[in-house]
Amino acid sequence: MSNRVYNFAAGPATIAVPVLEKAQQELLCHGADGMSVMEMSHRSGMYLAIYERAEALLRELMAIPENYTVLFLQGGASMQFAQVPMNLMTVTGTADYIDSGNFAKNAIKEAQRYGKVNVVGSTADIAYSRIPEISGVNDEADYLHFTTNNTIFGTHFWQLPQTKAPLVTDMSSSILSKPYDVSKYAMIYAGAQKNIGPAGVCVVIIRNDMLEREPMAFTPTMLKYQTMAKAGSMYNTPPTFGIYMAMLTFEWLKELGGLEVMEKMNREKAAVLYDYLDSQSYYIAPVEKDSRSMMNVTFVTGDKDLDKKFAADAAKAGLVNLAGHRLVGGMRASIYNAMPKAGIEKLVGFMDDFAKANPKA
Amino acid sequence: MSNRVYNFAAGPATIAVPVLEKAQQELLCHGADGMSVMEMSHRSGMYLAIYERAEALLRELMAIPENYTVLFLQGGASMQFAQVPMNLMTVTGTADYIDSGNFAKNAIKEAQRYGKVNVVGSTADIAYSRIPEISGVNDEADYLHFTTNNTIFGTHFWQLPQTKAPLVTDMSSSILSKPYDVSKYAMIYAGAQKNIGPAGVCVVIIRNDMLEREPMAFTPTMLKYQTMAKAGSMYNTPPTFGIYMAMLTFEWLKELGGLEVMEKMNREKAAVLYDYLDSQSYYIAPVEKDSRSMMNVTFVTGDKDLDKKFAADAAKAGLVNLAGHRLVGGMRASIYNAMPKAGIEKLVGFMDDFAKANPKA
Repeated sequence: MSNRVYNFAAGPATIAVPVLEKAQQELLCHGADGMSVMEMSHRSGMYLAIYERAEALLRELMAIPENYTVLFLQGGASMQFAQVPMNLMTVTGTADYIDSGNFAKNAIKEAQRYGKVNVVGSTADIAYSRIPEISGVNDEADYLHFTTNNTIFGTHFWQLPQTKAPLVTDMSSSILSKPYDVSKYAMIYAGAQKNIGPAGVCVVIIRNDMLEREPMAFTPTMLKYQTMAKAGSMYNTPPTFGIYMAMLTFEWLKELGGLEVMEKMNREKAAVLYDYLDSQSYYIAPVEKDSRSMMNVTFVTGDKDLDKKFAADAAKAGLVNLAGHRLVGGMRASIYNAMPKAGIEKLVGFMDDFAKANPKA
Repeated sequence: MSNRVYNFAAGPATIAVPVLEKAQQELLCHGADGMSVMEMSHRSGMYLAIYERAEALLRELMAIPENYTVLFLQGGASMQFAQVPMNLMTVTGTADYIDSGNFAKNAIKEAQRYGKVNVVGSTADIAYSRIPEISGVNDEADYLHFTTNNTIFGTHFWQLPQTKAPLVTDMSSSILSKPYDVSKYAMIYAGAQKNIGPAGVCVVIIRNDMLEREPMAFTPTMLKYQTMAKAGSMYNTPPTFGIYMAMLTFEWLKELGGLEVMEKMNREKAAVLYDYLDSQSYYIAPVEKDSRSMMNVTFVTGDKDLDKKFAADAAKAGLVNLAGHRLVGGMRASIYNAMPKAGIEKLVGFMDDFAKANPKA
């Protein structure tokens, strides 16, 4: 415990200590079940109790309406980049996509292999430094896809895109960071490895009418949402331990007071960092203020060598994984739900010391 | 620890205690890394060291030749039922399949959606009680697919099917139970949740020339073996913790002395149960002797009510998950690598007591 660092990785990311401690305690023997959760048959009563608790807690935390199905799948968000069009781009064969960052772009590229994609907004030309304006939306599109929080660039959709088409969103890096009105979306998906638990689980929350769309003929059986919805995510063996870890995270969030409380904490945490960034001129925060993410905070010194030194020196001080994504460089502090305020305060202290110790040429 | 049961589940299945203990010890902090393995960025040096060790140990244990690529994927064997044809049934569009059980049948059904499947052997008509004879193989087929060990029925291919077509096998329930000559196969795949680790990881061992086949046009990018081979399984975030657990299992196997030693232990363990079954007439072992699996041992009393009572009474005695698969009933003891001989001896003792206490009408 005492030698744990502050881990600012973008995902897989830091996990709340009480969640890890509970998992550790139960690792060889879960309650009176006589075995580790990892060893449980996914169809046993003891495991189904865990699965059902995970789903019930997620429904409660996010206030998911009854006409939505919750799935725990494999493959991460990247698998969804194909699964979404294969399952849902099947009425008119067209969909609107917003290009707000690297993962949004990957989603677009994959969708283009399955139908006609209209890109209705992009900030690629300004290095994704804000959420795009959108224009030319097609209300008759099979759906409009966007990325709620852009992990690499540190931007967040604070306003929903306006369209009559069903909204499908990749919420990987901001799910559970605050309440979202699920009823506004046709589908939400999220890789677990940021705010939910370990990598290898992807949560899908889908409105039941979307399940009526007939998937493309070549869709692998287990990639049809219909298959998994009918089987309660257990067409085949699900990632049982990852779902258990998700359940422990949901319990932790509930005990904290739920997503309103979490949002308040996240706003306070992000303010510590953004207020500091806005108060000085050594570091530059490239994202426009009204697009700023509470989960991923990007900044640069303006000098690539200093950026490198920053990440290296920070790691020595127990503040790790602060280098920006390999595609963009600079620095990025991912401050998900599980990052304590103390970690951010320590980071800001370090930033200030570093600026003084490393004047720019 | 002391309240752990003997878990005969078919998968997810029992995991070796030293593996669980090591994972427990490192759960909050892995070595000097300052974080749990679950929290490590998959692209960090500390995680890559784990990944590379997992691959190196698997290569060493299975003596995997250099012209094979090892992948750690998601989706389990069921995902492979689609991935195999989408990637490999692309030369002549036909493949041979052997129908030796339920998962073999599922693989056939899925492959039929992508091309022409020739079923070259089946024991469906005799309840899969032995490995099928094969006839009518097509040496020009894109591959011949078979299931090395049939988990539900308790049979094992002790002889390889004779064909000039490349052999592709689902080895989920017997990989690492004994040495297999990898050079005889074009591809081996295995869901982890029997002999490797927790559910959510699928190992693929593929000969490099098979990677040159052009996947079907609609294959999702991350389901192309080419994509994952090029990216070292990291086109997107892999199931990092599951791969770490696999690595710990590989370490445990190596410390035991490798797969020759493991085979010897498995032969001894299986003999305890089969010798008992052959020595009495209360229980019937339906599988023909030369098809018997060392991993999954099936038996029945011949009376469905007694079968039910058996599984229930056994559970009370700390011998759990002995009911046969929901499709076939009866009893099944899955005795994978991690099941100690003591568990099987206790089971045989229980079987004998049960037979005496519950005479047939």
